[in-house]
Amino acid sequence: MVEPANTVGIPLNHTALLKDELDIVIPTIRNLDFLEMWRPFLQPYHLIIVQDGDPSKTIAVPEGFDYELYNRNDINRILGPKASCISFKDSACRCFGYMVSKKKYIFTIDDDCFVAKDPSGKAVNALEQHIKNLLCPSSPFFFNTLYDPYREGADFVRGYPFSLREGVSTAVSHGLWLNIPDYDAPTQLVKPKERNTRYVDAVMTIPKGTLFPMCGMNLAFDRDLIGPAMYFGLMGDGQPIGRYDDMWAGWCVKVICDHLGLGVKTGLPYIYHSKASNPFVNLKKEYKGIFWQEDIIPFFQSAKLSKEAVTVQQCYLELSKLVKEKLSPIDPYFDKLADAMVTWIEAWDELNPATKA
Amino acid sequence: MVEPANTVGIPLNHTALLKDELDIVIPTIRNLDFLEMWRPFLQPYHLIIVQDGDPSKTIAVPEGFDYELYNRNDINRILGPKASCISFKDSACRCFGYMVSKKKYIFTIDDDCFVAKDPSGKAVNALEQHIKNLLCPSSPFFFNTLYDPYREGADFVRGYPFSLREGVSTAVSHGLWLNIPDYDAPTQLVKPKERNTRYVDAVMTIPKGTLFPMCGMNLAFDRDLIGPAMYFGLMGDGQPIGRYDDMWAGWCVKVICDHLGLGVKTGLPYIYHSKASNPFVNLKKEYKGIFWQEDIIPFFQSAKLSKEAVTVQQCYLELSKLVKEKLSPIDPYFDKLADAMVTWIEAWDELNPATKA
Repeated sequence: MVEPANTVGIPLNHTALLKDELDIVIPTIRNLDFLEMWRPFLQPYHLIIVQDGDPSKTIAVPEGFDYELYNRNDINRILGPKASCISFKDSACRCFGYMVSKKKYIFTIDDDCFVAKDPSGKAVNALEQHIKNLLCPSSPFFFNTLYDPYREGADFVRGYPFSLREGVSTAVSHGLWLNIPDYDAPTQLVKPKERNTRYVDAVMTIPKGTLFPMCGMNLAFDRDLIGPAMYFGLMGDGQPIGRYDDMWAGWCVKVICDHLGLGVKTGLPYIYHSKASNPFVNLKKEYKGIFWQEDIIPFFQSAKLSKEAVTVQQCYLELSKLVKEKLSPIDPYFDKLADAMVTWIEAWDELNPATKA
Repeated sequence: MVEPANTVGIPLNHTALLKDELDIVIPTIRNLDFLEMWRPFLQPYHLIIVQDGDPSKTIAVPEGFDYELYNRNDINRILGPKASCISFKDSACRCFGYMVSKKKYIFTIDDDCFVAKDPSGKAVNALEQHIKNLLCPSSPFFFNTLYDPYREGADFVRGYPFSLREGVSTAVSHGLWLNIPDYDAPTQLVKPKERNTRYVDAVMTIPKGTLFPMCGMNLAFDRDLIGPAMYFGLMGDGQPIGRYDDMWAGWCVKVICDHLGLGVKTGLPYIYHSKASNPFVNLKKEYKGIFWQEDIIPFFQSAKLSKEAVTVQQCYLELSKLVKEKLSPIDPYFDKLADAMVTWIEAWDELNPATKA
């Protein structure tokens, strides 16, 4: 049986990597007791907590953590009318945290994610692995059969073009989950007892031109490189769909990374995902997405950005036009979403004014 | 330290999977003592041994194995003038074995490959894993973050389009190597002591549109689906290049699999690769390839086959025309290679006449 790691007695990491260059973003509706387990690894970092739902509720944060917390009232106050682009009563609101951060890197984690154990029984420092992933290059143009060629003990194999061995900058590090796998409602219903117990000791670049289902549960990225594309869309309260926030971000991010020559990695680190969400509730949130993704994915697979789009913002605005044009016929929701994508970029630029180089 | 598994005492596998539908192809210049270690797993199968180099030498095969052996004289006798397409003094001659086989599946293995151990210390039955890989579908159109969704304990994750979950037929299973990794000469020279000790417990589909460096050391494929594309080119005696036989096959195979909607898997099983080849000798064989691959890979990345090409043979002949047209300017060798590709298909069809459906 897979169990979370015990972190009691692990000394606090005082030489935390990128301590002043990374924010941890956590969306939540409850007290953040789960942080106790993460203390040895995460306490040195600054947290941005985005409170989902009722702003009158108080969220307790374990002592010793340095944090700022935003509830819906804060979001409305800071963004004014542009707050319409931030979802309400849905963990998609986390992307507000990406926007208010002033750091280069973001790690975002769900409050039902605990510390995993590697096969030797050692507690996995997920953030440390994400940072390693982000700081070493990606290899999106050709597949390396020994996985990440930049890891210790590995390299590029015979037949890998030398001109591609420098790789490209890594924009995204997508981590995985032991115990409860990230399944959709139908799969949850069919396999209620399936647990992920397979620890795959690999990190790999997702090849250029290939889309993937990006899960927001255990995710890190370089805000400078890809931040403005990390929009989690319109989900939850008043919207016809839920549980596609991270998927939406993942499709947009991958198309833009491919266009700009940036890398996306997946694999290590694992977190321990403690609790399956209710598959019936999930089905209600997801069912339109299950239809729609059959059209959305081919749309993103064939989406072409122009040569003129050289910044993430420019790419994202082009993508919003394509969404309006090609996806609105599916449902008026996409018209609204395309507008929200524009609002998101406006809000991003307002909070993150360009600095002169 | 990684060591090969001890297979003494492992009972002979009497219920071997696909026993009558699979041939094992081994190119060799020496006695096949390495088969002793493989006996529990491979003895039930038929071997096709292709003797490389001096035909007057006798190759000893351990007792109890059922085999046929071809030396250069046999190849010349069977193929006549078409024997020119089969390399001499190079393990690329192994593809002759693919051609003379009458079975649906091929497993090919080098004679310096031993049985690997999994992390629990158990001897890995490589062939059994290859067969599993070949018998279950591939998913080349969208990336699954939990790797092979058809493996026990895994599935498609949230956001994976349901229309793609049936997958496509798997044509190729590419296995990996513990101990001596498959590095090129420059990497061997720079890292003479690097050993691969990381056992990555994963099988994955290489996405459509992504090329990979296919190694012939530990490889299985479905001969009916992709056999005629498994040509290992002109290498060794009289040729300006070596050690690109499997790479060449891999590039062609992947382009054709992508065109025909077939899957290519990589990952498990591991074999234990016992001995590093001489990096100086390798450099001499490889150096032109190291230049050429910088042009060859973009060529294959952009190669487009026509809608009319619906069989592997038709695809391969189209590819040979493209090679002649686009790669001959690099070196006259490619003109010769393009002709040999045509000869290979003619020889294949001669030995494997089409049966009426």
